[in-house]
Amino acid sequence: MPAMLREPFIYIMSSSGKRLRPLLTLLACEAVGGKAEDALHAGTAIEILHNFTLVHDDIMDKSPIRRGNPTVHIKWDEPTAILAGDVMMGYAYRTLSMNTPAALLPAALREFNRGFIEVCEGQALDLEYRYRNDINTGDYLRMIGMKTACLLEIAVSTGAILGTADGQALTSLTTFAHALGTAFQLQDDLLDVTATEEELGKSIGQDIVEGKKTYMIIRCYELTRSLHATDPKRMLIDRFYAQHGLPALDIPDVVAMMNELGVTKETEGLITENFSTARSALRVLPQSDARTLLDAVITLLDKRKR
Amino acid sequence: MPAMLREPFIYIMSSSGKRLRPLLTLLACEAVGGKAEDALHAGTAIEILHNFTLVHDDIMDKSPIRRGNPTVHIKWDEPTAILAGDVMMGYAYRTLSMNTPAALLPAALREFNRGFIEVCEGQALDLEYRYRNDINTGDYLRMIGMKTACLLEIAVSTGAILGTADGQALTSLTTFAHALGTAFQLQDDLLDVTATEEELGKSIGQDIVEGKKTYMIIRCYELTRSLHATDPKRMLIDRFYAQHGLPALDIPDVVAMMNELGVTKETEGLITENFSTARSALRVLPQSDARTLLDAVITLLDKRKR
Repeated sequence: MPAMLREPFIYIMSSSGKRLRPLLTLLACEAVGGKAEDALHAGTAIEILHNFTLVHDDIMDKSPIRRGNPTVHIKWDEPTAILAGDVMMGYAYRTLSMNTPAALLPAALREFNRGFIEVCEGQALDLEYRYRNDINTGDYLRMIGMKTACLLEIAVSTGAILGTADGQALTSLTTFAHALGTAFQLQDDLLDVTATEEELGKSIGQDIVEGKKTYMIIRCYELTRSLHATDPKRMLIDRFYAQHGLPALDIPDVVAMMNELGVTKETEGLITENFSTARSALRVLPQSDARTLLDAVITLLDKRKR
Repeated sequence: MPAMLREPFIYIMSSSGKRLRPLLTLLACEAVGGKAEDALHAGTAIEILHNFTLVHDDIMDKSPIRRGNPTVHIKWDEPTAILAGDVMMGYAYRTLSMNTPAALLPAALREFNRGFIEVCEGQALDLEYRYRNDINTGDYLRMIGMKTACLLEIAVSTGAILGTADGQALTSLTTFAHALGTAFQLQDDLLDVTATEEELGKSIGQDIVEGKKTYMIIRCYELTRSLHATDPKRMLIDRFYAQHGLPALDIPDVVAMMNELGVTKETEGLITENFSTARSALRVLPQSDARTLLDAVITLLDKRKR
C-alpha cells in the first residue's frame, strides 16, 4: 500500500478507541458456542468499517479533533482522507472475504454489507436533519438506529454467524446490540448536559452550542409546540432552531428547560429501558462466560460518564 | 435509500458512459462458455465501482465537469459526493454478494476486492506523482495499471469466474484486459496532442495546460536529461515541471518537442504493441461469438478519436 494511504490508515486505527465493536464480535461468537479466534478477522473488518466512518464523517462535519488528536483530513488533507477511507473499506472486505469459511461467507457478507449501507444512509439522514426543523423523536431514533446501533448489530451478528449460531440466538444478539447502541447514543446526548466538565473531559453543553439536534433538543421542541409563542421555553427552543444552536451563556437555561419539561427524566428512562432490553435479550442465550461478559459490557456502558 | 444519496447515485450511473466494463464482464463470461445473464450482477457491481471512482476522484481533482455535466460535488456538495460514493460501494458489494452462487463467491470477491483496493492505491500514486519530479515511465505504467487497467482486468476476471473458466482462460482474459487498459490510457494521453479539436470535442493540449504528467511528458523529461541545461527542449520541459503545466501558447512547442524526440512515434508504437498483446491473448480462447466481439472491442478502441 502506498505510504500516503498506509500512514493515515495506521494513524486512525491506532488512536485510542474503546474497541467495543470487535469485543462484541468475539464475545458473540463465543456466546453461541464458537471460538473467539474464528471471529477475529470479522472483528477487525468491523473495526475498520467503524474507523472508515470516523474518517469520512469528520471530513463532512469539518471536525478538527477526534479522540484528542487532529483528524485525518486536518493532519493530511481532504483527498488523502477520502482515499484512505476508501481503501480501508477495500481492506475490510478483503479481511472478511479471505478468512471466512466459504459456507458462512454469504451470511457474513449480508450483514457486513447491511452495516456499510446503513451507516452511510444514517449519516445522510443526520446531515439532512441538520437543515430540517420538522424532525421528530421517532425520526431521530431511526437515524441513530442506522448510524450507531447498526454497527453494533452487525458486530454481534457476524460474530454469531461465524460461531454458527441458530436463528434464535442471532435474533437475541441483534436485539441486544440494537438496544445497547440506542442507549449508548442517548447517553451521549444526555451526558452533554448532565455530566460535570471533569467527568466529560470537555465543557458542558457543547451540543447546544454546536446546534446538534439531539434527542433531548427535539423532545423539547415537540413538547413546546402547544405552548404560547411568547412562552420563554418555546422562545428559547425556537431560537435554537432558528440560529442552529445557542451561545454558551444560554446553556443553563436550556438545561433548566429540559428539567422543567421532564425531558431529562424521560431520556434517563429511555436509556434505562434500552439497557434493560439489552439485558433481557441476553437471557435467551445459554449461560456462559461470554454471556456474562456481554452483560458486563452493558454495566460498563451504563456507568460511563464520558 | 434517502433521496439525498439516491439522486446522485442515479445521476452518475445514468450519465453517458461507454459501459465498457460491464460489456467486458458479459463477453468474458460467454467467451469461457457461461451465460451472459449469469454475470449481469457482476457487471453492474463493476460499473458501480467504476462510477464510484469517478465521483470520489472528481472531488480530489476538483473537476467541475464530467461527461459534459456538472460533477456530483458541484451539482450537490462535497459531503453528498463523499457519502454517495461510499453508499455506492455498499450497493456494489450487495449486488455482487447476493447474486453470485456461493461456490463462486470467494473467487469473485477476491477479484472485486483487488479491483477496489488497486483503484484506490492507483489514485493515491496519481495524486502523489503530481508533486514529484522523479517519476519515470515505469512508475507511470505501473500507476495506470492499477488505476485504469485493473478495473478492466477484474471486469473480465469476474465474468470469467462466473462462467466457471479454467485457469488458462482466466489468465488469457486478464492479460487481454491489462493490455487493453494500458493501450486505452496511453491513447488518452496521445489523443490530447494528436487529435483535432473536432475529433476530441475539446481543445487540444488540455493535459499540458493542466500540468498532467502523461506518459509522453514523462518520456520527454527522461529523454532531455542528457541534454545541456540551456537546450530549448530541456528548458521547455523543465519549465513544465517547475510550473506544473504550461500556458496554452506553449502547446505547439511541446507537441513539436514530442515529435522531434520521437516520443509521439514511440507512444503510438507502445499503444499498437498493447492492442496487439490484447489480440494475441484472446487467441488462446476457443473460437466463439463472444471472442469475436471482444476482438471487435479492441478494434473499436483502437480507432477511437476521443
